[in-house]
Amino acid sequence: MASSENEPIMWFKEKVTPWDIYAHAIDCVLAQQKTAYQEMYIVESGSYGKGLILDGRWQSSTADEFLYHEALVHPAAICHGEPRKVLVLGGGEGATIREVLRWKTVEKIVMVDIDGEVVTACRQYLPEMHQNAFDDPRLELIIGDALKFLDSASQEWDIIISDLSEPVESGPSFQLFTKEFFAKIQRVLMPNGFFVLQAGALLPIQLTLHARLARTLNSVFDNVQSYHSYIPTFGTPWGFLLGSALSIDPRPDPEVTDKLLAEKTSGGLRMFDGTTMLGIFQQAAHIRKAIEEETEVYTISKPPQLSQGLLGGR
Amino acid sequence: MASSENEPIMWFKEKVTPWDIYAHAIDCVLAQQKTAYQEMYIVESGSYGKGLILDGRWQSSTADEFLYHEALVHPAAICHGEPRKVLVLGGGEGATIREVLRWKTVEKIVMVDIDGEVVTACRQYLPEMHQNAFDDPRLELIIGDALKFLDSASQEWDIIISDLSEPVESGPSFQLFTKEFFAKIQRVLMPNGFFVLQAGALLPIQLTLHARLARTLNSVFDNVQSYHSYIPTFGTPWGFLLGSALSIDPRPDPEVTDKLLAEKTSGGLRMFDGTTMLGIFQQAAHIRKAIEEETEVYTISKPPQLSQGLLGGR
Amino acid sequence: MASSENEPIMWFKEKVTPWDIYAHAIDCVLAQQKTAYQEMYIVESGSYGKGLILDGRWQSSTADEFLYHEALVHPAAICHGEPRKVLVLGGGEGATIREVLRWKTVEKIVMVDIDGEVVTACRQYLPEMHQNAFDDPRLELIIGDALKFLDSASQEWDIIISDLSEPVESGPSFQLFTKEFFAKIQRVLMPNGFFVLQAGALLPIQLTLHARLARTLNSVFDNVQSYHSYIPTFGTPWGFLLGSALSIDPRPDPEVTDKLLAEKTSGGLRMFDGTTMLGIFQQAAHIRKAIEEETEVYTISKPPQLSQGLLGGR
Amino acid sequence: MASSENEPIMWFKEKVTPWDIYAHAIDCVLAQQKTAYQEMYIVESGSYGKGLILDGRWQSSTADEFLYHEALVHPAAICHGEPRKVLVLGGGEGATIREVLRWKTVEKIVMVDIDGEVVTACRQYLPEMHQNAFDDPRLELIIGDALKFLDSASQEWDIIISDLSEPVESGPSFQLFTKEFFAKIQRVLMPNGFFVLQAGALLPIQLTLHARLARTLNSVFDNVQSYHSYIPTFGTPWGFLLGSALSIDPRPDPEVTDKLLAEKTSGGLRMFDGTTMLGIFQQAAHIRKAIEEETEVYTISKPPQLSQGLLGGR
Repeated sequence: MASSENEPIMWFKEKVTPWDIYAHAIDCVLAQQKTAYQEMYIVESGSYGKGLILDGRWQSSTADEFLYHEALVHPAAICHGEPRKVLVLGGGEGATIREVLRWKTVEKIVMVDIDGEVVTACRQYLPEMHQNAFDDPRLELIIGDALKFLDSASQEWDIIISDLSEPVESGPSFQLFTKEFFAKIQRVLMPNGFFVLQAGALLPIQLTLHARLARTLNSVFDNVQSYHSYIPTFGTPWGFLLGSALSIDPRPDPEVTDKLLAEKTSGGLRMFDGTTMLGIFQQAAHIRKAIEEETEVYTISKPPQLSQGLLGGR
Repeated sequence: MASSENEPIMWFKEKVTPWDIYAHAIDCVLAQQKTAYQEMYIVESGSYGKGLILDGRWQSSTADEFLYHEALVHPAAICHGEPRKVLVLGGGEGATIREVLRWKTVEKIVMVDIDGEVVTACRQYLPEMHQNAFDDPRLELIIGDALKFLDSASQEWDIIISDLSEPVESGPSFQLFTKEFFAKIQRVLMPNGFFVLQAGALLPIQLTLHARLARTLNSVFDNVQSYHSYIPTFGTPWGFLLGSALSIDPRPDPEVTDKLLAEKTSGGLRMFDGTTMLGIFQQAAHIRKAIEEETEVYTISKPPQLSQGLLGGR
Repeated sequence: MASSENEPIMWFKEKVTPWDIYAHAIDCVLAQQKTAYQEMYIVESGSYGKGLILDGRWQSSTADEFLYHEALVHPAAICHGEPRKVLVLGGGEGATIREVLRWKTVEKIVMVDIDGEVVTACRQYLPEMHQNAFDDPRLELIIGDALKFLDSASQEWDIIISDLSEPVESGPSFQLFTKEFFAKIQRVLMPNGFFVLQAGALLPIQLTLHARLARTLNSVFDNVQSYHSYIPTFGTPWGFLLGSALSIDPRPDPEVTDKLLAEKTSGGLRMFDGTTMLGIFQQAAHIRKAIEEETEVYTISKPPQLSQGLLGGR
Repeated sequence: MASSENEPIMWFKEKVTPWDIYAHAIDCVLAQQKTAYQEMYIVESGSYGKGLILDGRWQSSTADEFLYHEALVHPAAICHGEPRKVLVLGGGEGATIREVLRWKTVEKIVMVDIDGEVVTACRQYLPEMHQNAFDDPRLELIIGDALKFLDSASQEWDIIISDLSEPVESGPSFQLFTKEFFAKIQRVLMPNGFFVLQAGALLPIQLTLHARLARTLNSVFDNVQSYHSYIPTFGTPWGFLLGSALSIDPRPDPEVTDKLLAEKTSGGLRMFDGTTMLGIFQQAAHIRKAIEEETEVYTISKPPQLSQGLLGGR
């Protein structure tokens, strides 16, 4: 049967919404595994380099993961100014800890990921992402349940980063986006600490998850800053939420940020600096409005239910 | 043959890159026409409302066009402060002039669009977009060539807005993204005027077009500000460029913007306000770097050639 | 956003199985309607001419419907030899009655289709299919329920043709593929009459529907012949079943068939003749085996349930 | 990003025509290799078992390859009646030689395949296809050029089977579908021998390749029989051509065939028997007409050019 050989033939399809599919051509599958928790692929994509896919959702790609991981880690670190102890929940690729390790002030990182098989595969197949961060002596890697870890942890963390995959019902991180979970976080966070989580897509037709997560976080932390980054492989802008007992400057001075970065980090950032931080903290009016008007809070008894229609009303 | 009836069956596919396809489910085709210049579809999409598609490329959708059109129009107007005469090139949907008409200071708009068939279809099928802007007595609609119009125009415009579709080689706006064209713009722009154009995707693998357009604009206007908005139906963040003989504040004070908007416009904005303007002017570091390092300028003899590989190296 | 203009952008996708999608490029949508019974599209396709799609399933295309409609009608007519009264159930496109009308012996056709809106649209948009068959004075068109018609009909039919769409649960023809229905057919069929129905795909991974329909038909008619035709727009070979109280020659002599066709029809056939009839009656060994080994019969209380896994085991 | 986990995410797309895509869900990629001649994938598909894909075209799947390989091999063997020496060109999966080896009369098979890397991969990953045929002492496997082999071969072959992939211009078998090549075949075929080749799709919009191959074969062999089989993973019916100096019975008696099969083969056939052979030899009228009306012959100077429009006019 005839076919143009120049066209890609192997494609990964992701439903961004039930009516929108983003498909990426794949050069080859580097690893494929049904772990105890999820279905994992590590692939070489046509335009975004290597990618990690869990349960059918693109988690990250080497060509643009910097847009996600730099945005996830550095705002919290800048707000704190002197992070020494950092707790990372999830983040199997090792790119989140890579960014944390840029901070020369950091003395100890604990990374807790439930899926050791994913971590092992990422260490083997995604060196571009972790850049040997797993070998840093400051890191303690714990394969285990974030909830259990938090229950036995003590209050010592300057920064806690939730880099958990989306709260899809059947996924492993389903209950880690609730008020109860955020309260556990607060218990082990230092009084001057900062908690940050990746917090869902910012499509105009799909703002409910982010807005409710903002409200939920605000039910635990007095101060919450919503911000964003653009992740092309996701096909959508992405939201983040920063919470703290301390107030958070909504218009952080770029020069101050740049000075802190120069002094306290080892450099190497690609998307993040003072100007970027000022920019990503300025959410557009419709996103701020969605957060302001949201009234519901996610709890263990009423957690996010992506499969039941958060993706837009219709 | 069996098929799940709940799944959409009619899809529009757009190649964002040769290795990435964004497909949108379509409920119905409202209009379809091969005009003298391009192939036009107006469709009802599954998740983004009505959409206009020209030569296979999504131009705008009712669900998120505000993210494009508000970002296109208002920064230039805010920079100017008192726009009275505005020239719009392209913008067949009528949403660009809708945004311009929010400015109570505006006395005269001329909109020049080459494709009268597209304008007619948009007037009929996309009232959500134009919101009767075509009936405003301040508007003069000219169906014709932007180049010819500029050649016979006089220097009177406070703001000129280029809302032209992408410079694909076979499309109608191929040469309107060159130094020579920008010079024609400059000739008819008031000394304190501002020129703005939509200026391509901001994918990290695809920054060349935007960066060269920035350089090209800077070869004509002393001051150029690159900024962005995220358009979900495009699947990518989108770039804009603002040029002027006057300097442009890279960190516009949100309160000043909000005061201007309150005084001089009739309101109704959804994404744009002072905070948004501050945010979208802060391009991330890798985008600023791409612009700084770019050296080439588009000219009539060396125009953009999207089909020849601007979409990323590989 | 860039896209190759030469590539089709509008596609209809049909799931042939949950793991196999057949997608056809569409030039334009000629008609689209949610009727009282089903969702209908009439489209101009890229390679198969005009197509009728009901509830997401391709019913027929002008480029290859002759492979379906000639195969559906003429074997029964040849077996009978002198059909005068023909009853057609379904067949909204008018192509089935077109084939019946080629028989000069035919004095009366009644076509019963439940969906008048589909018939009306086909008459308007698919003249290539019906070729004015609806205007033939021998035809009586009844918009109504096949079941009700059969209950009040008398035994007079030489041939009864079931051209009903697939027995998908939510579709209108769900119960018309059962033993009880076939018994109603038998009651109104002349003792020397022939009943034929379209009877599902013949994929090796998907033979259950055809095999059970064969068994079901055989529980009512002493003699059953399974045969096939290849319908490219379906992406699969297609099965038919012929039932009668009379015996059916499994190796019909091509010369006899050709002589009958020459004498009794007005000609114009494209795929069907004596050689073709001999060929399509010879089912391959694996299909005969599936029918022989099948033991279940569809009844009103246990009808076909395509959505529950008939499409192949896995 | 949310996505239904139940839906397949990895897909292989094949363009059957420029306007028709057949996509198969893939469970995993077993092997992927850029050989010296072509790009090879061996995959586990969602519904058709394991599949071999060369240069983007599905070659065979474990779930339905019997429909191809039995149809390719046995008609020629039946026509001959007592095949002792068989030459197979191509057929890397080993399924063609598996079928040849069912004939107890066979004393010697030579299989010539140009791509040793594909053969090695098939031996390793597709045991369901070759069923250890490569280990049979009657087989001599030659990795090399079919043309060169023929030039130095002597006239001894009872059956020659061309199981070469489609004559796409950039593929390895481009010139093996010409009059000159068929003449080389004839030179080494016994006077009572039979030559058979797989000969393209039989879509009504795409009959040119098959019809011209039939004419080309007929310019070398006095007697040519066109026949077909339906291969679901191809999405189309498939054509074969049988050529000989001896006449070929167009309506082979099923009982005679079945008797030969019972006496001379070791059994195990799934689709092929006397009835099947009678059926697949009866091409439908439109296919016979296309062959009769065809006048062109493929030569070295005017070979098949699939990429230049054989796929249908439009």
